[in-house]
Amino acid sequence: MDFHLEQNLSNLRNTVPLVHNITNFVVMNYTANALLAAGASPVMAHAVEEVEEMVSIAGALVVNIGTLSAHWVAGMKAAMVTAAQLGKPIVLDPVGAGATSYRNETLTELLDVASPTIIRGNASEILALAGASVQTKGVDSTAASDLSLEAAWALSKKFDCVVSVSGAIDVIVKGNQTAFVSNGVALMTKVTGMGCTATAIAGAFAATVADPFEAAVSAAAMMGVCGELAYRNAKSPGSFQIAFLDCLSEITPAHLAELAKIRIS
Amino acid sequence: MDFHLEQNLSNLRNTVPLVHNITNFVVMNYTANALLAAGASPVMAHAVEEVEEMVSIAGALVVNIGTLSAHWVAGMKAAMVTAAQLGKPIVLDPVGAGATSYRNETLTELLDVASPTIIRGNASEILALAGASVQTKGVDSTAASDLSLEAAWALSKKFDCVVSVSGAIDVIVKGNQTAFVSNGVALMTKVTGMGCTATAIAGAFAATVADPFEAAVSAAAMMGVCGELAYRNAKSPGSFQIAFLDCLSEITPAHLAELAKIRIS
Amino acid sequence: MDFHLEQNLSNLRNTVPLVHNITNFVVMNYTANALLAAGASPVMAHAVEEVEEMVSIAGALVVNIGTLSAHWVAGMKAAMVTAAQLGKPIVLDPVGAGATSYRNETLTELLDVASPTIIRGNASEILALAGASVQTKGVDSTAASDLSLEAAWALSKKFDCVVSVSGAIDVIVKGNQTAFVSNGVALMTKVTGMGCTATAIAGAFAATVADPFEAAVSAAAMMGVCGELAYRNAKSPGSFQIAFLDCLSEITPAHLAELAKIRIS
Repeated sequence: MDFHLEQNLSNLRNTVPLVHNITNFVVMNYTANALLAAGASPVMAHAVEEVEEMVSIAGALVVNIGTLSAHWVAGMKAAMVTAAQLGKPIVLDPVGAGATSYRNETLTELLDVASPTIIRGNASEILALAGASVQTKGVDSTAASDLSLEAAWALSKKFDCVVSVSGAIDVIVKGNQTAFVSNGVALMTKVTGMGCTATAIAGAFAATVADPFEAAVSAAAMMGVCGELAYRNAKSPGSFQIAFLDCLSEITPAHLAELAKIRIS
Repeated sequence: MDFHLEQNLSNLRNTVPLVHNITNFVVMNYTANALLAAGASPVMAHAVEEVEEMVSIAGALVVNIGTLSAHWVAGMKAAMVTAAQLGKPIVLDPVGAGATSYRNETLTELLDVASPTIIRGNASEILALAGASVQTKGVDSTAASDLSLEAAWALSKKFDCVVSVSGAIDVIVKGNQTAFVSNGVALMTKVTGMGCTATAIAGAFAATVADPFEAAVSAAAMMGVCGELAYRNAKSPGSFQIAFLDCLSEITPAHLAELAKIRIS
Repeated sequence: MDFHLEQNLSNLRNTVPLVHNITNFVVMNYTANALLAAGASPVMAHAVEEVEEMVSIAGALVVNIGTLSAHWVAGMKAAMVTAAQLGKPIVLDPVGAGATSYRNETLTELLDVASPTIIRGNASEILALAGASVQTKGVDSTAASDLSLEAAWALSKKFDCVVSVSGAIDVIVKGNQTAFVSNGVALMTKVTGMGCTATAIAGAFAATVADPFEAAVSAAAMMGVCGELAYRNAKSPGSFQIAFLDCLSEITPAHLAELAKIRIS
């Protein structure tokens, strides 16, 4: 399988997709800037009074539960229902899944109203989400990385969606397909919202790439490659977060394709 | 007409006006930092329980509808009523006007409780706002830029306020007066919240310049000139947003007056 | 008294404490990044549905009233009650105390449900908070700096907590102990949320240092020293805020201990 990274980023930049984000307070500014830098157009709107109209003019919906409260959950549900009806891609970030019952219950409610196109989280979030909705084979006999892969497969099958697990090596699964993206640097874990940004960028690719699996792989590669480029000049978290935005804007489609390290199994 | 940019910026910095912002989640940090850098003192408070007291100690009120919800609208209305009663300048940013019915209806409600001193938006927002509240002459026979100018004039007359339309060339109108500010760089459209920041800076000038038209022109010039200065050293959006804050702080009143490109018609 | 700064910062970084923040919209991104850079792990969660669970897995709770509204206050109270029951340190930032009745009343309510471990604010906030809850000896015969010291002592006695007053010289009091930290640069007042960041960093030290007085002094020293280091390369507010995050990450425990200027009386 070939992932057409060059063409996908070119298309994203030519299309300038509107990405509707219902996301958390911590990362809103950064993910909006990342979407702009990458070539998309962000809009943030959460009120139940307007999310249906907003998602109807957007190319994709990104839902992120980082800083939940009741009226935001109502907006998330309404937006997801409309997105599903209109066939718009939905990208879900289960931030902090497993940390509190409220997050777990909210995720169950959200997944009840519509299946996401892509779920993107870190290993512990994917494990928690899978644990809440599917049966895994138990922890004892399985290595952690195998476990999260198993959880990703289970989630993917249950919701018929792509599951993207961020880590030192990103793992993206859909049905029988599995891709590994081994770009990125450890410093990315020291900047808040890098995972949320990966989710937002997945929304931008999902709005412009027909195959959600390819969209998720393209987004993971874009994040990892730009992380590596930013790290060349910025070794500390403050300057890194700024350099990363610069790289999202400066990277050429050809350079992305050249630097991406993707393995399929 | 002469705009006294040097004196206006000096006054702003000597006065350090308190600017009360009820603004959106995406830009709050950036507009607060921009106000501080320019020489003002920002405060953010949205609860209906406290906005009346807060606006009463402020020099100006900035209302921005970027991320609406019902209890924020209640706070906006209460603050605008109090500001109008106390004669404090009100600057309104109709973010996303025209995108959803909820935004249009909220703008109608806000404009019903008090007329702003300055309305600042981009061309599509000003067109949408004018379309919702005044009759324009139709799109067919008029170029887009002429149309937004016509919309700005109509809004200005209807609400007896200054209307500032941001774009490659900013247009500021009040009654029969029209000013064009041709500073700025295209990269400003790739940083989230630059328009919201223009609105906040307009609030700072409105708090310290007697004539609202001159305040709006001064703010547009300050934004555009600092954009040009920042662009000298920062060509990508991450580093540009940081350089822009630096320039807001570093620019001297004399340098602002020297670099501003203002034309009156 | 010796403050073991080197060991305290080493412990913080080895422990990577989870700091639960219920803070304001303006600073959330920056304080999360500051906590990560310093070596802690931030989580933001405000909903009454989940704060009890969240605080139970955290090392400390930080409550900051910068952008209040009713359902956030409910979350703050629930979190403080749980933190007190579980013996977790609580750090309270009374942002804007004295500016509105709503802030004063909210602070009274919060202090009724649980005594904080550390209260950190600027002089006017500490004076307002003390004025609302204890009797000071009157303004006329006392210099301002003496007054805020008197207010800090009064608050410390009333709530049996540490009180940390930020300023050109930070003053930290607990019972009969008083420490003065004379690090820092004036430019810190031109970046929004530096005070809120001091509060968050105090939360990180409170989670990992047994003595709250020593935790508060360590946090004040960390902030001031990193401010001085950042200022070496960044003299304007935009670049300073980024350099400051870099310094929080780069500073070694030994360097912190070497540069801290602490006086005890």
